[in-house]
Amino acid sequence: MHIGFIGLGKMGFNLVGNLVKHGHTVVGYDINEVLVEAIKGEGAQGAHTLQELYDALPEKRVLWLMIPAGPLVDKVIEQLLTVMQAGDVVVDGGNSHYKDSVRRHDYLKQKGIGFLDCGTSGGISGALNGACTMVGGDADVIEPLHGVFRDISVEDGYLYTGPAGSGHFTKMVHNGIEYGMMQSIAEGFEVLEKSPFPFDFEAVAKMWSHGSVIRGWLMELTEHAFSNDPKLESIKGRMFSSGEGRWTLETALDLGVPTPVIAMSLLTRYRSLQDDTFTGKVVAALRNEFGGHAVEKK
Amino acid sequence: MHIGFIGLGKMGFNLVGNLVKHGHTVVGYDINEVLVEAIKGEGAQGAHTLQELYDALPEKRVLWLMIPAGPLVDKVIEQLLTVMQAGDVVVDGGNSHYKDSVRRHDYLKQKGIGFLDCGTSGGISGALNGACTMVGGDADVIEPLHGVFRDISVEDGYLYTGPAGSGHFTKMVHNGIEYGMMQSIAEGFEVLEKSPFPFDFEAVAKMWSHGSVIRGWLMELTEHAFSNDPKLESIKGRMFSSGEGRWTLETALDLGVPTPVIAMSLLTRYRSLQDDTFTGKVVAALRNEFGGHAVEKK
Amino acid sequence: MHIGFIGLGKMGFNLVGNLVKHGHTVVGYDINEVLVEAIKGEGAQGAHTLQELYDALPEKRVLWLMIPAGPLVDKVIEQLLTVMQAGDVVVDGGNSHYKDSVRRHDYLKQKGIGFLDCGTSGGISGALNGACTMVGGDADVIEPLHGVFRDISVEDGYLYTGPAGSGHFTKMVHNGIEYGMMQSIAEGFEVLEKSPFPFDFEAVAKMWSHGSVIRGWLMELTEHAFSNDPKLESIKGRMFSSGEGRWTLETALDLGVPTPVIAMSLLTRYRSLQDDTFTGKVVAALRNEFGGHAVEKK
Amino acid sequence: MHIGFIGLGKMGFNLVGNLVKHGHTVVGYDINEVLVEAIKGEGAQGAHTLQELYDALPEKRVLWLMIPAGPLVDKVIEQLLTVMQAGDVVVDGGNSHYKDSVRRHDYLKQKGIGFLDCGTSGGISGALNGACTMVGGDADVIEPLHGVFRDISVEDGYLYTGPAGSGHFTKMVHNGIEYGMMQSIAEGFEVLEKSPFPFDFEAVAKMWSHGSVIRGWLMELTEHAFSNDPKLESIKGRMFSSGEGRWTLETALDLGVPTPVIAMSLLTRYRSLQDDTFTGKVVAALRNEFGGHAVEKK
Repeated sequence: MHIGFIGLGKMGFNLVGNLVKHGHTVVGYDINEVLVEAIKGEGAQGAHTLQELYDALPEKRVLWLMIPAGPLVDKVIEQLLTVMQAGDVVVDGGNSHYKDSVRRHDYLKQKGIGFLDCGTSGGISGALNGACTMVGGDADVIEPLHGVFRDISVEDGYLYTGPAGSGHFTKMVHNGIEYGMMQSIAEGFEVLEKSPFPFDFEAVAKMWSHGSVIRGWLMELTEHAFSNDPKLESIKGRMFSSGEGRWTLETALDLGVPTPVIAMSLLTRYRSLQDDTFTGKVVAALRNEFGGHAVEKK
Repeated sequence: MHIGFIGLGKMGFNLVGNLVKHGHTVVGYDINEVLVEAIKGEGAQGAHTLQELYDALPEKRVLWLMIPAGPLVDKVIEQLLTVMQAGDVVVDGGNSHYKDSVRRHDYLKQKGIGFLDCGTSGGISGALNGACTMVGGDADVIEPLHGVFRDISVEDGYLYTGPAGSGHFTKMVHNGIEYGMMQSIAEGFEVLEKSPFPFDFEAVAKMWSHGSVIRGWLMELTEHAFSNDPKLESIKGRMFSSGEGRWTLETALDLGVPTPVIAMSLLTRYRSLQDDTFTGKVVAALRNEFGGHAVEKK
Repeated sequence: MHIGFIGLGKMGFNLVGNLVKHGHTVVGYDINEVLVEAIKGEGAQGAHTLQELYDALPEKRVLWLMIPAGPLVDKVIEQLLTVMQAGDVVVDGGNSHYKDSVRRHDYLKQKGIGFLDCGTSGGISGALNGACTMVGGDADVIEPLHGVFRDISVEDGYLYTGPAGSGHFTKMVHNGIEYGMMQSIAEGFEVLEKSPFPFDFEAVAKMWSHGSVIRGWLMELTEHAFSNDPKLESIKGRMFSSGEGRWTLETALDLGVPTPVIAMSLLTRYRSLQDDTFTGKVVAALRNEFGGHAVEKK
Repeated sequence: MHIGFIGLGKMGFNLVGNLVKHGHTVVGYDINEVLVEAIKGEGAQGAHTLQELYDALPEKRVLWLMIPAGPLVDKVIEQLLTVMQAGDVVVDGGNSHYKDSVRRHDYLKQKGIGFLDCGTSGGISGALNGACTMVGGDADVIEPLHGVFRDISVEDGYLYTGPAGSGHFTKMVHNGIEYGMMQSIAEGFEVLEKSPFPFDFEAVAKMWSHGSVIRGWLMELTEHAFSNDPKLESIKGRMFSSGEGRWTLETALDLGVPTPVIAMSLLTRYRSLQDDTFTGKVVAALRNEFGGHAVEKK
């Protein structure tokens, strides 16, 4: 199949390579010219403008976006709308909010253009060698594309999740679970680290990756991280986040679902970005007020 | 009534003053000689040894301990046992674990000595001007002492809670609630502090102290803390703890009671004592492993 | 001062009584005719339509809304806009979202109409006898109204919090703190209830209301609740919520503030509305899958 | 190697089968005679008393316990002590508390008897086909047994973790992580379940098991659970626990490690065992007290 690919960052670049490997004809575009040149080395064609990309594709064009979520997606869609025709399909492969995807689907549908919201998991390596893709959208729009999604995914790693928005909803929840699982693993290793025993963290993670109840890819990655830096002494424990964990919590609040573990995973990340807290100051000041407990001065 | 008071620290010193004000005859002892001298200025007699304190009291002695919880209480009780006689009563006014109090009660009862576990709230000012006291122990042992506990408490601020251990149990739970309430207030002020509005925290705390649903002594103390340091810029947000919050959580686990807010209040304090966390490093490393997300180097 | 009061529910009705007691001339309106009649008994004038209410007021009218937050506020404002003139002032005394208040302020300002966002705390009794009010808005708009807000509040219980939105922001955070404090108290009483000691909850709450660190209005209300029903046997533990706790958490997420205790207070409420949980089913099923642990069948 | 195996429950029975498959000579004992008979079908010898089991083994006996943690382990050790000789080794393969294991190690060492604390993960199927084993104890005691532990484990699934107690400590933390991971997955599925989309949970779990970041054995088990009961309608969400999650939290408190996610996983399980909560009643009663909010009557 012919695919126009917009956004050649870490994930996009590897997905293009993955598509090419499976015999698809890909035209790649990025605002970064270096990446456009580089993608040619992966067997794809490079386009220097959206127009060029569009023109290189046969009718019923598939325009696959792998760009940062948010207003940029709307902006690119507006740019594409100056050239797109009824019958074209936009695939949003990024981590967009599912409500935005529903909105974009409805907006494009009015113009006869298909929209599929495609959540992509598996990290950078998965993008190249076999991802996990969860895609929502209209059944008739996705029909001709099932094969493409199946191609870029590992076996059984592709699911058509249902109506528009459901793909990104599923990916959002996936990431919420990911937050909780990562925090669980990390808390466990901190208990090991503070314990009286001289644990070899890499060895523990390796052993837990083989045969344990908690085995899985995250534990394997934990092993790998410790193989590079046995006590993680070179890095800081600042946990950034890119939005899906927060969206999961906000959605849980919308739906009235108590999600204490996902909530605490998220708040723990926020806390890690603070060197000191106003909350702590107020509590310390109060302990001093009623009990004369010493406060630490700055 | 004649009372032997052991432990003349911040709380004990003021309680002695409170007892004297109410017409009780107090002999005070502390390992710190300076405090023994100072207590004389409060109208109490000073004793330089436990023996001297003991000898200064009439029969059916009341020996009131206001010393740090833990092994020291057992040690002092053992020292007193070398002189105490059946009919004497030990009052433990400190923050002992309720299980220790049950044990000490049973141990002393075998020797004919009474034991009362007295939780004391109200802070340093309350100790002097009217505390809140919750006391457990045998009904016949506490009978002659109801008046003393009532004297040192504000009106309606004294309760005989029931069997041995129940006084310290009640105080433990009081402190667990205190952790949660302080953390609630503190989180609220951090939301104000990070907000786009230029709040005057002292003014807000003052207003909330008058007529609001959340008014109470902790809010008044919050106002006072901000009156000294409007943005708490001079102190660090390190929240120490002295045990009762942890005991409340451990007791909740014993009893199968879900106490998420008390648990999080406690864990937030532990977190505040860390400059960086191993948990955070593991999560940051994992994000880097699968997604190539940047980590902050030390 | 002349005030037009719109919304005569539990809070509004009592606030009108409070205003009248302080010598203000009030015209009250509600869609419920019964309340319009009843308010006359409080010394206010009743209006059967917004037009009638408006016409009964002198120029530079003050229109005080005490109606459910949300679209209804916008609807009433639109109705008022058909008659309001430049120089009039709308006071929103309800629990509106602070972002809505900023929006409404800006919208009305364009038309020369003032807008004040007034958070009101203190419950139904406070509304009548002295509330706690926190009000945001333009300094020149609130200037002539300081006296009114002071009148309906207990001494020191009124604060002009600053720019538009800051009044409802302050009230939102107040309620977030309230959630945490209530949950703290409630968890403590559940620990008492599951303990081996035969506590008298009313007596404990009464004692804690006098001299303790955790004394305050909520503890007094706890005492009162137990005085009616010593073990709360007649009611269910379903904890409803009306939005401000959730907004506090959502705002904390916006601002990157970790608020674990407010978050858990909220999620605990959501949990209380479920008889069984899908989360629990999944965990129970997983324990059965790997360990053969028994599941409870329906 | 010759091994005496005590405790032929779900885990023990399968471990014996595993040992026999790897060429070890096993004598099995259980208080349940039916299991002693049944184990013969697995190629092991059955013993009807501990004495008979002991006598069937050559010197330097290996006595492997797979029995419920707690006092029963001490009781069986005392029974064995009536016959054991210096040079024998006790392996505790159950989920004992690591502090008990340290105590038992020290106690037996005085008598010249070795003690190894062996945490066993991988569930019932892993016990038979390849487990994950983490073993602590003295280096000279474990030396001759490395091969046996390797035999019953999957490749790379065995680790000698270090000094006595470290094996059960590692297993405890493993289970703490397991609690957090299971709760994360479960919360995610509840968000899916309450969503507006008609998800096929089995299909989602299957897809997430292939190529996603959160793939692993627990997700595969989730898929399997849904394959049996697509919406888990037949079971209740009551989440029991057998102690290690609680120990992990208690140990974290000992070590001053904030583990919010493990804590909330545990407390959520406790909550699931309550049909109604006293906490909820107190909050509901308080809302009624100050705001007149309706309470639900029983």
